[in-house]
Amino acid sequence: MEGHVAVVGAGVIGSAWASRFALHGIDVKVSDPDPDVQRIIGEVLDNARAAWGELGLAVTNEGTISIAGSIEEAVAGAGHVQESAPENPTVKIPVLEAIAAACPADTVIASSTSGIKPSDLQPSIDNPGRFVVGHPYNPVYLLPLVEVVGGKMTDAAALHRAMATYTEISMKPVHVRVEIDAFIGDRLLEAVWREALWLVNDGVATTEEIDDVIRYGFGLRWAQMGLFETYRIAGGEGGMAHFIRQFGPCLQWPWTKLVDVPELTEELVQTIADQSDAQSGHHDLRELERMRDTNVAAILRALEANDWGAGRTLKEQRERLG
Amino acid sequence: MEGHVAVVGAGVIGSAWASRFALHGIDVKVSDPDPDVQRIIGEVLDNARAAWGELGLAVTNEGTISIAGSIEEAVAGAGHVQESAPENPTVKIPVLEAIAAACPADTVIASSTSGIKPSDLQPSIDNPGRFVVGHPYNPVYLLPLVEVVGGKMTDAAALHRAMATYTEISMKPVHVRVEIDAFIGDRLLEAVWREALWLVNDGVATTEEIDDVIRYGFGLRWAQMGLFETYRIAGGEGGMAHFIRQFGPCLQWPWTKLVDVPELTEELVQTIADQSDAQSGHHDLRELERMRDTNVAAILRALEANDWGAGRTLKEQRERLG
Repeated sequence: MEGHVAVVGAGVIGSAWASRFALHGIDVKVSDPDPDVQRIIGEVLDNARAAWGELGLAVTNEGTISIAGSIEEAVAGAGHVQESAPENPTVKIPVLEAIAAACPADTVIASSTSGIKPSDLQPSIDNPGRFVVGHPYNPVYLLPLVEVVGGKMTDAAALHRAMATYTEISMKPVHVRVEIDAFIGDRLLEAVWREALWLVNDGVATTEEIDDVIRYGFGLRWAQMGLFETYRIAGGEGGMAHFIRQFGPCLQWPWTKLVDVPELTEELVQTIADQSDAQSGHHDLRELERMRDTNVAAILRALEANDWGAGRTLKEQRERLG
Repeated sequence: MEGHVAVVGAGVIGSAWASRFALHGIDVKVSDPDPDVQRIIGEVLDNARAAWGELGLAVTNEGTISIAGSIEEAVAGAGHVQESAPENPTVKIPVLEAIAAACPADTVIASSTSGIKPSDLQPSIDNPGRFVVGHPYNPVYLLPLVEVVGGKMTDAAALHRAMATYTEISMKPVHVRVEIDAFIGDRLLEAVWREALWLVNDGVATTEEIDDVIRYGFGLRWAQMGLFETYRIAGGEGGMAHFIRQFGPCLQWPWTKLVDVPELTEELVQTIADQSDAQSGHHDLRELERMRDTNVAAILRALEANDWGAGRTLKEQRERLG
C-alpha cells in the first residue's frame, strides 16, 4: 500500500484503526463530523501506545494522524480507505458514495461493518469492484483478526490488496468466501449473546456468573485453539467424527432457546445494566479498557513464547517493527 | 473434606478429576469397568503433572490413585464421590444407586454430567439430599471452572460442602441457582456449536477458518473478561444499557439459524472430520493435548501476573500447595 490511509468515521473502531495504522508508521487522515473527534482519537491512541508498551513493541517511526475538514480532504490521494461510520446502510451508503467519488479510482475502499453484506453497500459507488468489507474486532490495535468479505461486484484483486494491507499492519485477515449477513465471528457471537440474554431474562444467572463461566472455563480454551480443534481433542482416540456422532445429536433435544429472542423490555435492559454495574461499576471505563488491554497483551505474549496462534502474529509484528 | 475421594467412571473426565485431587495431596480410589483404566489414568496423570510443571506448581505431597475392584470398594469410607459415568441417565442412575448404597450416608455424591438435571438423577438414590451436579470443563486438571447445581431434593449443606471441596482443589465453583438442562456453559457452547455446524454445512467456512476467527479474535477477549464485561466496554461512555439498546435489536433480524439444526448426515460428519484432519491431522492426539495444556498454562500464568480472573485462582492454588 502506497500513500496515506483515510479513516472515515472515528468512533471507538475508527480511532483504533487510525492508531493501528499510525503505530505501523503509516500516515492517517481522519474525517468525522463529531466535534470531539480529536479527544477520542487522543484517548484511543494513548491506549494503543500503552498496549504497544505491554507487548514490548518499539515504535520507531509513528505515522501522523491528522483531522481532515471533510471526507473529500481525507480521501484525496489515499492508498487505502477504511470506513467506520455508524452501522446503518442509510448512513454508510452516502458516506461510501462520497468516498468513492473523491479518492483515486483504484484505491481499495473497505468498510468496517460488522454485519451488512458488501453487495448491499457497493452498487451505487464509483468503481464498485474495489469495495470490500474489512471487519475488525475491538480493540483493533490489539486483536489481529479482520474478516475480509467481497460482494458480488468485488474484484479478486481488491480482496488481495486489502488482505495485503491488513497483513502490513500485522493483522490476521480471514477471507470469508461466502457472503452472508454478520460474516463468521458475529454469527457465533450473536448465538451466544441471544442465549446469554435468555439466561439473564429467566433469572438463571447474572451477567457476572455468565462471564465467570466463560473466563474460568471454555474462554481459556478458545483463546488458543478455538472450537473444533478443542473438540477434536475431546473426541479422544476416536477423533472428530467420533465426537460429532456422540455429541451432535444433543443439539436436537434442544437445550437452548431456538426459536425466539427475549423481548428487550426496559426492565430487562435495566436488569442487565444493574447487574453489570454490580459486577464492575467500581471501575471506570478507562480502567476497564486498560485492564482488558493489559490482559490481552499478556495473553498474546504468552502465546508468542509458545509460537502459537495469535502469538505468531505478534512475533511477525515484532519482526516487522524491528 | 475428610477421607479419600472416590472417582467412579474414569474416562477423560474421571481420570482428570483423579489427577486434580491427587496433585492436591488427596488419595483417590477409582472404579471403572474398562480394562484399560490403569493406562488411561497414567496418561492423563502424566499430562496433569506436565501441566503442573508449566504452571510452576510444586507437587510436594501427591496423593495415591488406586484402582478398586468395584464401585462398593471405591466408595466405602469416601469423603466425596465424583461420578463421571457415560452421559446417559440409564447408565448413570444405577451407578449412582450403587454409590449411594455403599458410601457413608452423609458423603456428598457429585455427578460430572454436562447436561442432565440433578432432579432427574437423584430420586432413587439413598439420602438424595446429598446429591449435586459438579460439572467441570476439560482439561479438569487445568481449567478452574466447576458448575455446581442442586436438584429439587438437594440440601443446601450438600451444595456448600461440594463447593468447599472444589475450592480445596483450587477450582472456581459457580453455583447455578436455577436447575436447567445443560446449565450455563454448555448452553452457550451449544448455541455456538449449532451455528458453527451450519457454517460448515453451508460451505461458508472450514473448521480451521472458524477456529481462526475465534482464536485471533473474540477468544482473546473471553479468556479474561467474558461476554458482558467486554460489551460494557464496547458501550463506551453510554455503558451497558446503551450497548443493549444499540445492538440488542440486531437479534431480531435474525442473522443466525434460529429454528433448526443441520442434519448430521454421514456426509457432513465426514466433511468436518476431513477439514479437521487438514487442520491438525499432522499432530497426534497426545501432541495436541500437550499444546493445549502448554498454552492454557501460559495464559493462566500471564493472568496470574496481572492478578486477574483465572490467574487469581492459580495464585491461590500456588499458596495452597506451598
